[in-house]
Amino acid sequence: MSKAEWIWYPDDFEIELSNKLMAERYERDVMIPPFWKTPTCFQNVKFRKTFDLGKEERVRIRAEGVFNVQIDGAYLYSVKDEFSVPAGKHEIVVSVYNGKGLPSLRMEGETVFTDGTWDVTCNDHVMKKAGSDSEFLQDNTPNTFRLPSKEVFPVAAVETGLGTVYDFGEEIFARVKLTGAALGKKPRVYYGESFAEATDPGHCELLSEDFVVREGYVTTVIAKAFRYLLTEDIRFDSLSAFAEESPCRCKSSFVCNDGRINEIYKVAERTMELCSREFILDGIKRDRWLWSGDVYQSSLMHYYSFFDEKVIKRSMIALFGKSPFNLHINHIVDYSFFWIVCFDDYLTHSGDEKFGRENCCKAFEILDYCLSRRDEKGWMDSRPDDWVFVDWADLDNTGEVCCEQMLLVVALRRCVGLAGRFGYSEKQAEYSAVLRETEAKLEEFWLPEKNAYTYSFKNGKPDGKVLMHPNIFAVLFDLCGDERKEVIRKNVLKNPEVPKIVTPYMRFYELSALCRLGDTEYVTGEIADYWGAMLEEGATTFWERYDSEEKGDEKYAMYGRKYGKSLCHAWGATPLYLLGRYVAGLKATDGAKSFVVSPDLAGLKWFRAELPLVRGTVKIEADEEGIRVSSSELSGVLVAGGKEYPVLPGRVTEVKR
Amino acid sequence: MSKAEWIWYPDDFEIELSNKLMAERYERDVMIPPFWKTPTCFQNVKFRKTFDLGKEERVRIRAEGVFNVQIDGAYLYSVKDEFSVPAGKHEIVVSVYNGKGLPSLRMEGETVFTDGTWDVTCNDHVMKKAGSDSEFLQDNTPNTFRLPSKEVFPVAAVETGLGTVYDFGEEIFARVKLTGAALGKKPRVYYGESFAEATDPGHCELLSEDFVVREGYVTTVIAKAFRYLLTEDIRFDSLSAFAEESPCRCKSSFVCNDGRINEIYKVAERTMELCSREFILDGIKRDRWLWSGDVYQSSLMHYYSFFDEKVIKRSMIALFGKSPFNLHINHIVDYSFFWIVCFDDYLTHSGDEKFGRENCCKAFEILDYCLSRRDEKGWMDSRPDDWVFVDWADLDNTGEVCCEQMLLVVALRRCVGLAGRFGYSEKQAEYSAVLRETEAKLEEFWLPEKNAYTYSFKNGKPDGKVLMHPNIFAVLFDLCGDERKEVIRKNVLKNPEVPKIVTPYMRFYELSALCRLGDTEYVTGEIADYWGAMLEEGATTFWERYDSEEKGDEKYAMYGRKYGKSLCHAWGATPLYLLGRYVAGLKATDGAKSFVVSPDLAGLKWFRAELPLVRGTVKIEADEEGIRVSSSELSGVLVAGGKEYPVLPGRVTEVKR
Repeated sequence: MSKAEWIWYPDDFEIELSNKLMAERYERDVMIPPFWKTPTCFQNVKFRKTFDLGKEERVRIRAEGVFNVQIDGAYLYSVKDEFSVPAGKHEIVVSVYNGKGLPSLRMEGETVFTDGTWDVTCNDHVMKKAGSDSEFLQDNTPNTFRLPSKEVFPVAAVETGLGTVYDFGEEIFARVKLTGAALGKKPRVYYGESFAEATDPGHCELLSEDFVVREGYVTTVIAKAFRYLLTEDIRFDSLSAFAEESPCRCKSSFVCNDGRINEIYKVAERTMELCSREFILDGIKRDRWLWSGDVYQSSLMHYYSFFDEKVIKRSMIALFGKSPFNLHINHIVDYSFFWIVCFDDYLTHSGDEKFGRENCCKAFEILDYCLSRRDEKGWMDSRPDDWVFVDWADLDNTGEVCCEQMLLVVALRRCVGLAGRFGYSEKQAEYSAVLRETEAKLEEFWLPEKNAYTYSFKNGKPDGKVLMHPNIFAVLFDLCGDERKEVIRKNVLKNPEVPKIVTPYMRFYELSALCRLGDTEYVTGEIADYWGAMLEEGATTFWERYDSEEKGDEKYAMYGRKYGKSLCHAWGATPLYLLGRYVAGLKATDGAKSFVVSPDLAGLKWFRAELPLVRGTVKIEADEEGIRVSSSELSGVLVAGGKEYPVLPGRVTEVKR
Repeated sequence: MSKAEWIWYPDDFEIELSNKLMAERYERDVMIPPFWKTPTCFQNVKFRKTFDLGKEERVRIRAEGVFNVQIDGAYLYSVKDEFSVPAGKHEIVVSVYNGKGLPSLRMEGETVFTDGTWDVTCNDHVMKKAGSDSEFLQDNTPNTFRLPSKEVFPVAAVETGLGTVYDFGEEIFARVKLTGAALGKKPRVYYGESFAEATDPGHCELLSEDFVVREGYVTTVIAKAFRYLLTEDIRFDSLSAFAEESPCRCKSSFVCNDGRINEIYKVAERTMELCSREFILDGIKRDRWLWSGDVYQSSLMHYYSFFDEKVIKRSMIALFGKSPFNLHINHIVDYSFFWIVCFDDYLTHSGDEKFGRENCCKAFEILDYCLSRRDEKGWMDSRPDDWVFVDWADLDNTGEVCCEQMLLVVALRRCVGLAGRFGYSEKQAEYSAVLRETEAKLEEFWLPEKNAYTYSFKNGKPDGKVLMHPNIFAVLFDLCGDERKEVIRKNVLKNPEVPKIVTPYMRFYELSALCRLGDTEYVTGEIADYWGAMLEEGATTFWERYDSEEKGDEKYAMYGRKYGKSLCHAWGATPLYLLGRYVAGLKATDGAKSFVVSPDLAGLKWFRAELPLVRGTVKIEADEEGIRVSSSELSGVLVAGGKEYPVLPGRVTEVKR
């Protein structure tokens, strides 16, 4: 690979690409762009670097946009695709303007070539380091980027009254390819995640009417999610699909004595692989958007499976957008807070100092915005434009909602840490003071007579409602002491009188909290039951939601639409996290330079896991005889039976029962 | 014309169009984009309006960008170019996303059609009234807008050693058209504002190498400024040009006994017409950019000639760009202040309450930014990134420059007025307090021993330098009493020891200030001499700068380039303002509902002027016998010999000497 890279203004590649992709959401033939404000890249930028050359050098230049070249402040005339830099020390400045996309630049000479060491400015007097990512771009240019694709073929063709239905055997994200096609007047492809959906052309969520004619074949324009296909008013010789490949590779495995769980693990992997694309999407059929809460959960799953740092970073960059931060991410208050937690957790798992240093001010900007929107009592309240969300469930989120105050405390804690780590001492002091006050005030939500955190305050008084949500957060984010956590466990989380969590989104937090309280056996049982039931329904990826009470095609409905439910939803991959974090028991420590393993059989007879670290992997085996741990690159610690044992690279640490 | 209009997010049409045009600046074959940060439009917007229909209605829809339609919150499927709205009351919401330009919409039904009454949001929870301008767009769409053009033909062909030079007789802004063209390998068109420039292909500022082939002819891609043309490596049958027409029509005339001044007036008109295009440009050959200081001066000239409210508004909108305002306009401190003055003056002349109400917060935003950049003494100082400019001359602008403090005072005064007028009482109180302090502090720049304002403070002390600039501003912007103004006149402005103003930019202010002090006869003499000399050089439009000392082709040089000087520069049209404002003596009053005329023969024997008002025109004749004034629509006042006489529409008010 050449040393020369395409470069751009930092974050702008991610911003442009996410805009383009999010605008590819369709509901049947209706395009649905995000309903939040989307940022745009800077269209007029200047790249700069100084070189000291021993001899004159020819440099080839390509730009996306119109450009000019200055050497030592003088314009070069007649530069089409190459120019010379004379011997000696020279400052090269290239202006690129692109009114229809991302201004980007690639220069290639022996010593003069573009890469991330160049400076760039949007003409605001501030120079930043240019963005670049050759590994991700491959042979694409920044403005024509597409994930690589692979041709795949249907595994079955089923004749129906409507015509032949093609079954690709599993969910894919692909453009349909037809050879020998004669497109009729109203050519259409109908897609189905389920057979039922593909054979219901009047109600399926996705269809295509636009085709690109190439030499020898036609394809649909936009890649879409499906397993089954039905065509209408098209004659063709053969049908296949160009399936876009995820840039992420799974680095983990988990096998145990329970075959269902082994199968669940593989399907969870496949689910996360499909949702991890240019960015981490919530689901590939319907939204195809970036949601901060979903990206946060997915990032935690990633650390125990794909651990693709880049897809997490790209997603965080796109979600933040551009300063000034003056609207909640996805309009959701919680999701602004989760960006901060996601960012801090990313640093914990990756130890990525550079990304941390370059982006920590974004966390501060988000927090400052949230702080500016507190009410006169210092609480996050429900402003008309701020979507207080908590859960994808029917909740009364008026007044001051406990979960929001909890997330505020968590965000403050994280930002105190970040400010200290990256040398923002004033911020650190400021946030510390607010944190102390807010933590103290949070106590008002604890109702001793109910042994629970109340859901919200209404008109200055606790509403007295006991729901799982704030109590889950209290355990998960260490918002109270161990004694109170135990009270919560008994009195709320395991209390059949308290309404159950029904959404997989909140179940992620609930099951994590239960694991933290030691209920791992209950959790592996839940995994086997809830996720196992989806397998019994024939799932090749995990769903947005599953309810065993829903019978027949009813199970595909959601949002008032017959096939509104997503059958490949990132949070469906929750077992990746639960099994890696709480059964295998792995935790990154010491700025991701080390790790701790505390395996827990959790009711299983035995398991063998291999899990990624920021460098290398760690293998963890446990059975009734004992525990064996080995790491390929990093040193760590095994905790078993209350004792600590060193784990050294390339050696097996074994502890017998 | 149909009632249906193209609509867009307010300001975004102007922002997109100005970006596109400013990126069409070329120096030979080098594209030169603005060196300041350029804003971009919102790409993802939602239009909304509620209708109450007596019966179902078909609506045709066109969008630039992908779109969807919701009626009462439900998406309509399969909308390609029309849809139905059922009878009854319905809310129509149309989302438009355009990743490559301005999202815009046009809907046409009997009662349901798009216009400026629609709401629009960039998905930030704020609804604004949509932008529209059918009169300006004509048959264009918002993204393909081009000024109308007219084919014009050379008036002469001159054979030279380099080939035939085509002379269009006067400066035009045009695309070159060739019929029967055979383009060689390196086809080029060389442009010249002067014959010398067109016949110096190695040094002329503009050339074209790109051509659009159409049926029957080819044209150059970008319209450029020229009078003379030379082609290279092109054979053709005939050559002409598509000259883009200004949207502005001159509404004034001025004739007097001095034939030179009459000729100057016409050439000034032509100069301003050429520079008044989509926006008011500084000059049409070289920069083709929007500069706030130039737009301000040009707007004053406009009020006495073209009075095209729309081109002034478009220019102010494009110059401001998008909130938050966090960089000086054109990077120049003075130019931020001049935006505020320009805005306020616009309201004085137009009485345009709607524009004032919708945009006064921009003035406050600019002022707040400037206030935030004062030093600890409350003065505007010279920060590294803030270009303290004052004049296009060699000035030492370090330290605290007097002119900047003066502009701060002027801006504060204007904003106190605006805040009061549009009901921002807190702002009004805040600015009033800062104004009092700043006015008081300005006295430190007055040096009684020198009878002049000193140029700047250096290290806390006046530099003692006496230059024209601050003393001109003091007179022009009423920063001191009449007595001191008279001291300044004698001691500075008319003092041959004080270095002369040499740039036409500052001469605009200097001559205006002298007129205010009653030196109108001197000013008409200067007009006849300085501008008359350019006519003698054969000018068909007025130049960026003229120096009678420069001989031969030397006079075309500037910025170290042989033909760097612009020969059609907006500020060259200064006589339009001086003659209208101080000789004809017209001033808009009472929120532009009325006017005052106080004619001044200024050394002329007689003159007859017709000048525009916001509605109608006013005719002013003066000679040694007396004065005659008539107005077509507005009532006003004639001031003559210290007395006031009413001017009533359609009647002549005559005052004998």
